[in-house]
Amino acid sequence: MWPTQSPVECFARRRERLLTTLTRPCVLGSGIARVRNFEGNRFPFRAESHFLYFVGRHIEEALLCFDGARVTLFAEPPDPDHALWHGPSPSLEQLSISLGLEVRPRSEFVAPADCATLPPSDVESALWLEEMLERPVEAGNLSAVEVDNELAQQVIGLRLVHDEFAIEQMQQAANVTARAHAAGMRATRVGARESLVRAAIEAAMTESGMTPAYTSIVTVAGEVLHHNTSLNVMQAGDLLLVDAGAESVEGWASDVTRTWPVSGRFNGIQAEIYDAVLLAQQVAIAECRAGVRFRDLHRRAGRALVQALVEVGVFKGNVDSLLERGLGSVFFPHGLGHLLGLDVHDMEDLGDLAGYAPGRTRSPDVQERYLRLDRDLEPNMVVTIEPGFYCIPERLKGERFESVRSAIDPQKLELLRQVRGIRIEDDVLVTSGEARVLSAAIPKSRSELETVLDV
Amino acid sequence: MWPTQSPVECFARRRERLLTTLTRPCVLGSGIARVRNFEGNRFPFRAESHFLYFVGRHIEEALLCFDGARVTLFAEPPDPDHALWHGPSPSLEQLSISLGLEVRPRSEFVAPADCATLPPSDVESALWLEEMLERPVEAGNLSAVEVDNELAQQVIGLRLVHDEFAIEQMQQAANVTARAHAAGMRATRVGARESLVRAAIEAAMTESGMTPAYTSIVTVAGEVLHHNTSLNVMQAGDLLLVDAGAESVEGWASDVTRTWPVSGRFNGIQAEIYDAVLLAQQVAIAECRAGVRFRDLHRRAGRALVQALVEVGVFKGNVDSLLERGLGSVFFPHGLGHLLGLDVHDMEDLGDLAGYAPGRTRSPDVQERYLRLDRDLEPNMVVTIEPGFYCIPERLKGERFESVRSAIDPQKLELLRQVRGIRIEDDVLVTSGEARVLSAAIPKSRSELETVLDV
Repeated sequence: MWPTQSPVECFARRRERLLTTLTRPCVLGSGIARVRNFEGNRFPFRAESHFLYFVGRHIEEALLCFDGARVTLFAEPPDPDHALWHGPSPSLEQLSISLGLEVRPRSEFVAPADCATLPPSDVESALWLEEMLERPVEAGNLSAVEVDNELAQQVIGLRLVHDEFAIEQMQQAANVTARAHAAGMRATRVGARESLVRAAIEAAMTESGMTPAYTSIVTVAGEVLHHNTSLNVMQAGDLLLVDAGAESVEGWASDVTRTWPVSGRFNGIQAEIYDAVLLAQQVAIAECRAGVRFRDLHRRAGRALVQALVEVGVFKGNVDSLLERGLGSVFFPHGLGHLLGLDVHDMEDLGDLAGYAPGRTRSPDVQERYLRLDRDLEPNMVVTIEPGFYCIPERLKGERFESVRSAIDPQKLELLRQVRGIRIEDDVLVTSGEARVLSAAIPKSRSELETVLDV
Repeated sequence: MWPTQSPVECFARRRERLLTTLTRPCVLGSGIARVRNFEGNRFPFRAESHFLYFVGRHIEEALLCFDGARVTLFAEPPDPDHALWHGPSPSLEQLSISLGLEVRPRSEFVAPADCATLPPSDVESALWLEEMLERPVEAGNLSAVEVDNELAQQVIGLRLVHDEFAIEQMQQAANVTARAHAAGMRATRVGARESLVRAAIEAAMTESGMTPAYTSIVTVAGEVLHHNTSLNVMQAGDLLLVDAGAESVEGWASDVTRTWPVSGRFNGIQAEIYDAVLLAQQVAIAECRAGVRFRDLHRRAGRALVQALVEVGVFKGNVDSLLERGLGSVFFPHGLGHLLGLDVHDMEDLGDLAGYAPGRTRSPDVQERYLRLDRDLEPNMVVTIEPGFYCIPERLKGERFESVRSAIDPQKLELLRQVRGIRIEDDVLVTSGEARVLSAAIPKSRSELETVLDV
């Protein structure tokens, strides 16, 4: 059950593959631990994903340098003073053996002329890299002007389609996430705070030597898409939306959402909506295979959702015309999913370069502007499939809403407001045939959930 | 049991007190949430402590401006697009009412001429503040050149001695820490990983709506002072060192260490050392009162430790001469404690300005160079008292060690290596009489620990 690490050869192979595509030298920085409230109190160090992909270890202030046929890691040699506070660190020789990679003291690093790099995600790490490379480095997302960044494209070429070791890491993360959600379900009870469930979920991750890949969402206010506090008292009629995923030791993410009734039983309208969202997800997963365009999956899921809600009488009218009027996006305002890998939104630091195929850009259309992924799927991509249904007060008023109001059963509309938010999300490995759901072990159907919650 | 917030008047009073000491305008920034591995994936926002002290809420990208007799908070008005993802935020009017403070849109902010500020702790927040103030702002600790920073001295004047509301917040944090340590003791068992205990401890904090104030240390390798991973399997003969404290919703820290036997029973040498450390701590707490110089407490605790170890035959010789030869600092290499408040090392962002009284500076002496606090104690200061005993392999060799080796019983020395690390730390409120131990509810004596672990 305890997570394992990838073999050294896996990283050697990844580095080798990058080397063969490079036309000039490149340097990837691991970054610096983020300061919490003063310099001496930092969040646990999490290396930059591009660095982790090729090294697999969170080594602070290290530089991975690809130059000609040679790959060298430049790192700080152990400092005896540091050992008092942080324990003995391996010597650079030991590090070299355990990584299967040439390791040199960072003081020997000289930036190769004309070397490429990728922006670290925070400013302090960017300033440090700037100093190392002796040239300006901007932190944050690659901006539109950099869409021709060759190194970014080369790295995307590798990271978009996962090798067996990456998939194994994501499977391990999903397995821990399964234990975490199960612990969350067991901890749910009427009258307790959301934080009780969140504690159980995150404890299951910590116990397994992992960390949350992102700030967990554990809330009865599921209509708030990124609700990051868990202070509410859970009431009998509430649905609890839990979006929480573990990150493996090497940095690989899982990202799973379940929505379950606090009381253990869905009521009538909750059951109707839940089943519609689940159906939309099942349709999308069933059609998720190599060659399919992800945007089309998004549309099919949206259509399945509206159709299911017409069938149970929540919506009235012709499905095509309802979709055209934008009814779907009133209740399902985000995208169907995104890439998953070392980042929970994989390579989002490269803007839309990874998520959008060359030549494709975000649609200004309200139904698709939040879609983070528009590529034709390939075997061994991993994506999330996460349709949802949300009664967001701000969206259930105003001109745009009035134009679709007549399509909603007025009695149901009142009930809908009590549903708040439902989302169902799994991590899906694309193949040329049936997709493999990495998070399949987590209860999902109403009957499965009610059985687990009944215990 | 659920934590409470301080009344609005408490912050008004703090602001009023600062106003009366200011000789020129000042602006305090709340800062920006730290990026984790890409812009969209940030650690939960934790405002700068100087800002929190006067506002009590984690409001991102806000500016608290003291100008003349007027205090104004400048904040971002709610953005409807933001509401979709993050839920409705209070309007500036509502915020103003709930804070008892004038609140204006940030777009109206104009930095008062010649306004003072304090450096935010991270670079991104500093760059943001720089833009707001239209002048250079450096992140991080105040450097030595800024010891005459008047605003820092004024803020230290307030934050050094706590009001009843600050003490109440720290008491609540200590109460949650007590539950957390109890949960950790219950979770301890031979053959499990340290992470199981850490999970139980942090879950107790999360459950209570709090967060860890710093990265928890939960390890059998207690000799590594800041051991931040918890991946070892706990063995029957191990001592588990747990240094973990909760932070209240308003940002107030607790900081507590206990060391307990994984098997539930201390062995002979462990018991001897444990009792010596505990005695040293008790001596320091007993003498911890207003008027006492903290450095003297540090010395008395070090002396008590050596003396106790002479009495049980671990050390041989005259206590004074052993201390002179530096035996204490071989096994107790850090300081006795530090200020506690909104930061776990309170105001360490101001360098030694807060910890060291005017005119006092760090000693170069190896026995005192790591001492973070050298002030004469005043009523309502809160400090940690945390003596320890560590067998650090790097310190048990080399020339310096050889000069004291003859003072250690050779048979005991072998046993000592198995003890690894013991630290006992409490949060102590200074009064003019007996100190109040905020973390007194946590089992500490050997018999208390063995009783709890026996269950």
